[in-house]
Amino acid sequence: MSFRVAILGAGPSGLAQLRAFEAARDAGAEIPEIVCYEKQSDWGGMWNYTWRTGLDAYGEPVHGSMYRYLWSNGPKECLELADYSFEEHFGRPIPSYPPRAVLRDYIMGRVAKSNMRQYIRFNTAVHWVAHDEATDKFAVTVRDLKKDELSTEEFDHVIVATGHFSTPNAPYFEGLEQFPGRVLHAHDFRDACEFQGKDLLLIGSSYSAEDIGTQCHKYGAKSVTFSYRSSPMGFDWPESFSEVPLLTGVTGKTAHFKDGTSKEVDAIILCTGYQHHFPFLPNEMTLTTHNRMYPEGLYKGIISLANPKLIFLGMQDQYYTFNMFDAQAWYARDVMLGRITLPSNEAMLADSREWVARELKLADPTEEIDFQAAYILDLIEPTDYPAFDVTRVAEIFKQWEHDKEADILGYRNKSYRSTLTGTLAPVHHTPWMDAMDDSLEAFLKEDQSETAKESA
Amino acid sequence: MSFRVAILGAGPSGLAQLRAFEAARDAGAEIPEIVCYEKQSDWGGMWNYTWRTGLDAYGEPVHGSMYRYLWSNGPKECLELADYSFEEHFGRPIPSYPPRAVLRDYIMGRVAKSNMRQYIRFNTAVHWVAHDEATDKFAVTVRDLKKDELSTEEFDHVIVATGHFSTPNAPYFEGLEQFPGRVLHAHDFRDACEFQGKDLLLIGSSYSAEDIGTQCHKYGAKSVTFSYRSSPMGFDWPESFSEVPLLTGVTGKTAHFKDGTSKEVDAIILCTGYQHHFPFLPNEMTLTTHNRMYPEGLYKGIISLANPKLIFLGMQDQYYTFNMFDAQAWYARDVMLGRITLPSNEAMLADSREWVARELKLADPTEEIDFQAAYILDLIEPTDYPAFDVTRVAEIFKQWEHDKEADILGYRNKSYRSTLTGTLAPVHHTPWMDAMDDSLEAFLKEDQSETAKESA
Ligand SMILES: Cc1cc2nc3c(=O)[nH]c(=O)nc-3n(C[C@H](O)[C@H](O)[C@H](O)COP(=O)(O)OP(=O)(O)OC[C@H]3O[C@@H](n4cnc5c(N)ncnc54)[C@H](O)[C@@H]3O)c2cc1C
Ligand SMILES: Cc1cc2nc3c(=O)[nH]c(=O)nc-3n(C[C@H](O)[C@H](O)[C@H](O)COP(=O)(O)OP(=O)(O)OC[C@H]3O[C@@H](n4cnc5c(N)ncnc54)[C@H](O)[C@@H]3O)c2cc1C
Ligand SMILES: NC(=O)c1ccc[n+]([C@@H]2O[C@H](COP(=O)([O-])OP(=O)(O)OC[C@H]3O[C@@H](n4cnc5c(N)ncnc54)[C@H](OP(=O)(O)O)[C@@H]3O)[C@@H](O)[C@H]2O)c1
Ligand SMILES: NC(=O)c1ccc[n+]([C@@H]2O[C@H](COP(=O)([O-])OP(=O)(O)OC[C@H]3O[C@@H](n4cnc5c(N)ncnc54)[C@H](OP(=O)(O)O)[C@@H]3O)[C@@H](O)[C@H]2O)c1
Repeated sequence: MSFRVAILGAGPSGLAQLRAFEAARDAGAEIPEIVCYEKQSDWGGMWNYTWRTGLDAYGEPVHGSMYRYLWSNGPKECLELADYSFEEHFGRPIPSYPPRAVLRDYIMGRVAKSNMRQYIRFNTAVHWVAHDEATDKFAVTVRDLKKDELSTEEFDHVIVATGHFSTPNAPYFEGLEQFPGRVLHAHDFRDACEFQGKDLLLIGSSYSAEDIGTQCHKYGAKSVTFSYRSSPMGFDWPESFSEVPLLTGVTGKTAHFKDGTSKEVDAIILCTGYQHHFPFLPNEMTLTTHNRMYPEGLYKGIISLANPKLIFLGMQDQYYTFNMFDAQAWYARDVMLGRITLPSNEAMLADSREWVARELKLADPTEEIDFQAAYILDLIEPTDYPAFDVTRVAEIFKQWEHDKEADILGYRNKSYRSTLTGTLAPVHHTPWMDAMDDSLEAFLKEDQSETAKESA
Repeated sequence: MSFRVAILGAGPSGLAQLRAFEAARDAGAEIPEIVCYEKQSDWGGMWNYTWRTGLDAYGEPVHGSMYRYLWSNGPKECLELADYSFEEHFGRPIPSYPPRAVLRDYIMGRVAKSNMRQYIRFNTAVHWVAHDEATDKFAVTVRDLKKDELSTEEFDHVIVATGHFSTPNAPYFEGLEQFPGRVLHAHDFRDACEFQGKDLLLIGSSYSAEDIGTQCHKYGAKSVTFSYRSSPMGFDWPESFSEVPLLTGVTGKTAHFKDGTSKEVDAIILCTGYQHHFPFLPNEMTLTTHNRMYPEGLYKGIISLANPKLIFLGMQDQYYTFNMFDAQAWYARDVMLGRITLPSNEAMLADSREWVARELKLADPTEEIDFQAAYILDLIEPTDYPAFDVTRVAEIFKQWEHDKEADILGYRNKSYRSTLTGTLAPVHHTPWMDAMDDSLEAFLKEDQSETAKESA
């Protein structure tokens, strides 16, 4: 096959694209020449923990936003890859909420079985992508970080799989420059122990706020105050937590809120989300969106309406993660292989607008989950991605929402049933609040006493 | 005049270049069209304090490495601009060691008097510089950060004045990824109050280590341990300080050193210097150097041997700062205006090599100071930069080294005499160790009791 594909990023999305091509080759198809550029020294994307913050050893922005003691915030049964069950990877059933290292091990497990690593140029940051109208080729310029040298190669397709939870959205609040303590964005949060005995202020009311707040509580923070812009999370928080309206400013160590209340705090963590950021894409090719269920400008949520040979993976807000990236990658692969023929530009635009219109009507998480399930089913249908029970997974997501509502510090002790193997996850040997060691070894130690009970 | 000059960066060096052209215009000369690109929203470069760390509001690397409560680490008499004395700016004599805000005010004061701000495009990051052999023009591509839009303009000369103390050099040490506390590079250090009551480990034995260590002590750190690679600073430290050989690794909170000793610490600050980093320059135009007195590849320490229309300001290790940038900018201006004719490439290379050879023989700070003084005199000689007593300034630097040696926590209470006005600096109203408020207002409050005594 005579065409060339560049995959930018070797996180779960980029690896899904590699795996999709590999699966086609295993089934006898010819596949294109592939080069995957990854600025880190290993694959795994966001799932590689780094102690670094800000800039990396080569002056590139640090990609990692994950922190120590991070546990999955959704049941693993919701993100199981249709062609590779957790049971297959670990050789036995494991509990529903694994820590970071365990999920990383799983995701890498599938790709480690193949020879896909050979396609990846590590320590190589994408610097610039240009498209030549005349030849319809992309020129991808990258920096070899170890040599500090730039070079350019030509491609027929470019897959952008660089993630969108790495460039902080960090709003300014009056007085931050005079606050006598640490002010950081969630992106730079690494170790909760730093905040032992401290009064913390967290701005934001989404996943990062919730998880960093509970994390810090678990590791000894004195109090956690959440400050929300739109609405509080509304969980049944223990006593040392509180939710207050938006911060209006700080004077010294005192934080002032919209409702006129104030609180003395020792550190401020901006859990205010991330920006989609593509410094390597020219104006006409970039994707401009916030963190939403269906970004504008993409057909099937992946194919750029500006240039259908430019494809974005994983750019939506995510309930489904790994299996959604797979669905996208299989679809993208079949478009590139000519197995799926794209309709006219007008038809693609119309289809995309229809999804966006549907998205705008979503009223709550339940509807969002169903929307993303429908999106995935729509992607999988024309491909040979192994069927999985997308709708059943949606039900587990809803149960998860319910379990969080019921017990924000205890929901990670619940068990769910794999839609692939039918196995009910065992109970973890230690309740989450007491499980201080987040290593793979500690998690996989077999000494469960309790018998699992399915969450329902 | 029909040529165009791009100045990259509006810190002290970039502003010196603007001022040099302005001075020529004031004296009746025709000057080129100038565009200065600055990614921050204000001029001042490193001297603008920001509470942000890592990435800025637009996803660009934060430039600022300065922190709260930072005071000049050299006497202001050593960095006085030959055409603008401190006395002229403040309307009266001020003490020798001002805090950041006061030095910033001074540096901006000179340029604020002119209409130079009009040349500067703020919130605009330089993305890429290309040189066209055929036309001998540079194409400078920049990103308008607010609009997130790229655009390109052509220039005849490019002045790189983007600084070199912003991209951390942060070595890895075994176990850092498991250290239960904060690990940061000096670049991200902002507020010493965060470290009150803590045992700190600082790696490095240069200015950042010394200043951040004393800073943290001043604001209540429990102990400061410096770990050196080459040699200790060797000051007569108070009891809560210690200097130990290089860190070999950490296990839990315990730091282990090369001499077999260990210490339990709460936070680790890598004061391990910075990298020269020019992500916007192609291989053949970039400057590859560490922090040294005379970077290789530059004629007169500023003119690129790869392309003499490409000029670098302020890229050397610095005793002299503002007045050295001025000397460089005046020389660069006169080259661009055709007032100075460059010799052949061979001659420039030979001259540059000679300086590098001299640099390599420097044995101690005294010789380094004399070397930099000679370099500045060499630059000023053919220009009309107002004469100043470079050699006398060198003597003040040597006195400063001596004063630090004698009293590392007290040297900032000393007074020196301006080489421009002849005035002896007054004593500050509060000894440095007790001066907790680093604002301009607090510093300029007039209630000195003591009479100054010249340091000698
Ligand atoms: C704090 C946090 C916790 C999370 N927890 C969960 C969870 O519990 N469960 C879950 O399912 N999901 C979780 N997620 C979502 C997570 O982002 C996805 O699971 C997944 O990592 C997304 O995969 P990706 O490949 O699209 O992006 P990423 O994993 O972000 O990978 C992108 C890759 O692109 C590379 N890259 C970026 N820019 C360049 C460049 N210029 N040149 C070369 N390479 C580049 C990066 O180095 C990286 O390897 C979490 C996210 C965050 C931020
Ligand atoms: C912690 C610290 C303390 C210091 N203390 C002193 C002191 O007490 N006395 C002293 O004399 N010197 C001190 N210095 C040295 C200081 O760096 C110099 O005084 C001076 O700021 C150097 O000026 P510059 O213009 O060369 O670089 P900078 O001041 O660093 O300015 C460079 C400018 O370029 C801009 N820029 C960078 N990249 C881009 C891009 N891609 N696009 C657009 N713009 C860009 C930056 O935003 C910045 O405004 C200190 C340095 C540090 C790090
Ligand atoms: N353990 C885990 O698995 C874990 C932990 C953390 C994060 N994550 C993942 O990380 C991803 C990102 O989550 P996130 O919480 O960082 O981002 P997010 O879901 O996009 O939420 C952003 C939050 O910031 C608030 N916000 C934005 N701008 C603000 C402003 N100017 N002032 C005040 N508040 C502002 C938003 O408030 P509004 O509601 O008003 O818009 C919202 O609450 C998710 O995929 C999540 O699953 C996972
Ligand atoms: N208040 C102030 O005015 C103030 C405060 C701070 C900084 N500054 C300025 O900031 C600039 C930068 O100073 P700096 O101290 O950050 O940098 P620097 O002067 O370049 O010193 C770097 C230090 O890091 C050490 N180092 C480098 N790599 C290392 C490694 N792998 N392991 C261990 N040690 C390593 C070096 O040790 P070796 O000796 O072994 O090479 C050296 O001690 C200077 O211009 C300074 O004046 C000013």
